[in-house]
Amino acid sequence: MKLKEISLLLNGRLQGDPELEIHGVNGIEEAMEGEITLLSHKKYLGKLGKSKCSAVIAPLETNAGINRAVIYVKNPYLAFARLLEAFYPPKEEVPHVSPRSAVSESATLGNGVRIYPMVYVGDGATIGDRSVLYPGVYVGDNVKIGDQSVIYANVSIYPGTVIGNRVAIHSGTVIGSDGFGYVVDEQGKRKKVPQVGRVVIEDDVEIGANTCIDRATIGETRIRKGVKLDNLIQIAHNCTIGEDSVMAAQVGISGSCHVGKRVMMGGQVGVADHVEIGDDVMVAAQSGVPSDLEGKQIYAGSPTIGHGSWRRAQMALPKLPDLIKKVRALEKLIEKPGNNA
Amino acid sequence: MKLKEISLLLNGRLQGDPELEIHGVNGIEEAMEGEITLLSHKKYLGKLGKSKCSAVIAPLETNAGINRAVIYVKNPYLAFARLLEAFYPPKEEVPHVSPRSAVSESATLGNGVRIYPMVYVGDGATIGDRSVLYPGVYVGDNVKIGDQSVIYANVSIYPGTVIGNRVAIHSGTVIGSDGFGYVVDEQGKRKKVPQVGRVVIEDDVEIGANTCIDRATIGETRIRKGVKLDNLIQIAHNCTIGEDSVMAAQVGISGSCHVGKRVMMGGQVGVADHVEIGDDVMVAAQSGVPSDLEGKQIYAGSPTIGHGSWRRAQMALPKLPDLIKKVRALEKLIEKPGNNA
Amino acid sequence: MKLKEISLLLNGRLQGDPELEIHGVNGIEEAMEGEITLLSHKKYLGKLGKSKCSAVIAPLETNAGINRAVIYVKNPYLAFARLLEAFYPPKEEVPHVSPRSAVSESATLGNGVRIYPMVYVGDGATIGDRSVLYPGVYVGDNVKIGDQSVIYANVSIYPGTVIGNRVAIHSGTVIGSDGFGYVVDEQGKRKKVPQVGRVVIEDDVEIGANTCIDRATIGETRIRKGVKLDNLIQIAHNCTIGEDSVMAAQVGISGSCHVGKRVMMGGQVGVADHVEIGDDVMVAAQSGVPSDLEGKQIYAGSPTIGHGSWRRAQMALPKLPDLIKKVRALEKLIEKPGNNA
Repeated sequence: MKLKEISLLLNGRLQGDPELEIHGVNGIEEAMEGEITLLSHKKYLGKLGKSKCSAVIAPLETNAGINRAVIYVKNPYLAFARLLEAFYPPKEEVPHVSPRSAVSESATLGNGVRIYPMVYVGDGATIGDRSVLYPGVYVGDNVKIGDQSVIYANVSIYPGTVIGNRVAIHSGTVIGSDGFGYVVDEQGKRKKVPQVGRVVIEDDVEIGANTCIDRATIGETRIRKGVKLDNLIQIAHNCTIGEDSVMAAQVGISGSCHVGKRVMMGGQVGVADHVEIGDDVMVAAQSGVPSDLEGKQIYAGSPTIGHGSWRRAQMALPKLPDLIKKVRALEKLIEKPGNNA
Repeated sequence: MKLKEISLLLNGRLQGDPELEIHGVNGIEEAMEGEITLLSHKKYLGKLGKSKCSAVIAPLETNAGINRAVIYVKNPYLAFARLLEAFYPPKEEVPHVSPRSAVSESATLGNGVRIYPMVYVGDGATIGDRSVLYPGVYVGDNVKIGDQSVIYANVSIYPGTVIGNRVAIHSGTVIGSDGFGYVVDEQGKRKKVPQVGRVVIEDDVEIGANTCIDRATIGETRIRKGVKLDNLIQIAHNCTIGEDSVMAAQVGISGSCHVGKRVMMGGQVGVADHVEIGDDVMVAAQSGVPSDLEGKQIYAGSPTIGHGSWRRAQMALPKLPDLIKKVRALEKLIEKPGNNA
Repeated sequence: MKLKEISLLLNGRLQGDPELEIHGVNGIEEAMEGEITLLSHKKYLGKLGKSKCSAVIAPLETNAGINRAVIYVKNPYLAFARLLEAFYPPKEEVPHVSPRSAVSESATLGNGVRIYPMVYVGDGATIGDRSVLYPGVYVGDNVKIGDQSVIYANVSIYPGTVIGNRVAIHSGTVIGSDGFGYVVDEQGKRKKVPQVGRVVIEDDVEIGANTCIDRATIGETRIRKGVKLDNLIQIAHNCTIGEDSVMAAQVGISGSCHVGKRVMMGGQVGVADHVEIGDDVMVAAQSGVPSDLEGKQIYAGSPTIGHGSWRRAQMALPKLPDLIKKVRALEKLIEKPGNNA
């Protein structure tokens, strides 16, 4: 691609030779001659100086100090994403159903599906148009998968699960396993509560690797449109995750929680059961949420408090041992009459 | 089912039309006409008012305010579990061994087993009567699985593992992988300690999805009768988990721990190696257990302390920055002679 | 093996009958007559007293109180590892490629490989000499695996991944899934950043079960020589983990982190994105690392501080509620003029 074509694609402002040929995209440290890279922030100008790249995408405000061809854009990350799409278009694959898969005769396969070897598709399942099942995928009875969804290798989808369009589920993830529900019976023994509900995953959801989403006891566990879940996340039975919410790796959401829209959670956050989290909440990594959180706030800590309070408390914490000594000293001073009079 | 039959089944006290036909069980918000739901607590009476359900199971003490047919019971959750069993009996499946599985000729299969496509069963393995292996299950050499156990899709069971009767293991779980054991050799390099022990899982254990239980270095990692483990849990080499203990998702137990009977752990708890935990201990979510815990107590925090102390300390923590200021003010007052005299 | 042979193998000092026949190795509590065990530390002398073992490996400094045949060695754990290797040599298996696997015609298989049933090997993949792929392994297109590597059941390796020699990857682990990268577009919707980089795993790395290592957005996620990762770990896109570093279970490393050499992390540690961690750092279990860590130090807490400071602060924390009361009392005393004069 010529630089002028890239600039047009990204709706950018070009500074440099418009006829320059760019044949690849790479990181600022890895980029070689003929490649374009991203300057995400002014602070990396030093790295750019040493880079062998031939061109760079930079934020509008970086108006100095770049001794390379530059395309200035409003949102460099977005431009970079578009550039990667242009340079690495998804490989066109031929539709096929491997004879080494095991697809039930009562399953319905859409047009242009790809079903790799070692896939199992159960009775009454439906796979939508142009969806892909990689090797080792298990699709239980009566599962519905929409169009253009990609299920990566060794994913397990339990019977009755409903998955929308343009969903991606990465390897090892488990959808629809039993919720963790027991009651103690008259003999004091733990008895399993049958888990007869299901999981519904709406359109445009992306789920990472080795994540678990449990089926509802009755009713539904529902992951709404546009949710993005990272790896190794636990979503327990009967939860609802609101539209466009995002969770980093190793988050754990207990049973019957309702998470609002556009909520963002850092890694390793834990949420107790039956908690409601308002829209646009942000929860810092490793926080523990014991009870409902009001919308549009930032929380941190375990148990969670406002992020500012948490930060100040954590900064103060190492001073506590000294503080105890100081208070003891003050007490002594005051106990001795006349000492500080 | 008629309401009078349900009442009889649950040993409840019926108020309303005994001949009413009930054709389903559902959540309080989802239930429709002709369905029965659960009122688990008085505080949900408001939701019940708006529910379209025809009948409700309620605790004995809820003696007012229900404008529906009611079955009063002592333990509503237990009653609900029984009702779900009655309305959703496990589907009867025909025993079969798929020709698309790979079962060793030296393996022993019990009566009425179901072995789905893409299953691998190694040399000398034994599968008990009416046990089920879902697609993608790997059963290593010389594994023993008892009767009526269900191994869900894509579970991996390493050679030599012993699994009891009526055990359920959910998808993606790994049983018997190597313990994490290394020693530093004379050259300062980490050398693997061969992991030659095994995992034993006793009767009536249930294990969630994507959980890991490592084999012992030598001897056994043992999960005792009735233990319930949720998803994404780590049990390291040489641990023993005592009878009827319960762990929520993402708990991590380090090597050589001994956990007592009826211990309950919240989600994301971590336990250091070689720790002994007494019977009937409860550990709050996200706690970190650095050393032995005495039985019958409730612990919280990282490192764990008594739950009450932890709670008070956490409530006090946000006041710490102010406290530091107050002490500084006091010090100033006292340092200046005559100031507060 | 005779005791004198074992002593020779371990370069130890033998005390007892050199002709004694030892036929097994076992734990101190499990060992029976004819077996040898390990006394790792003097404090277990009591357990040794009750053990039925016939011989024991003990540290040089334990020069008294052992009423058994003893082999004194400098490093008992290392000796024990060697002994296990001698007593439990890896089973010799016949090389084979199962006809029930699906290996692409364009894949290259080395000498002496073992490929079990239900394995998938994609186009252009290379499997080195004497490497093993257990059932259910997925090897994507153009993956390179070196010599003598063992990939356990149901591991998923995405296209383009490079794996070195003598690498072990345990069941359920996912290598090369998409990094978790999104940008918000002009319509305010989250747009996926194509993840076109790869994962490189160098020689002598061992990875536990159900761990996830994401591919780089562009460039590489790299796990350097000799790294040991436990189970259920998350390594995000574009990270580098330095030589011989070790991470316990459930650690989570966010995107673009650079971890130094010989770093050790306890279980459930979390590291924020773009963090650099120096060589020889130790991070205590459950810590949260928000920013760069200087080398050769021990850290703890969330956010991490020096381990000593953290320990003192945690010991002091339960005293905080009392401290608040004390300060209030002091304030009252001082507020009232003449009270303490």
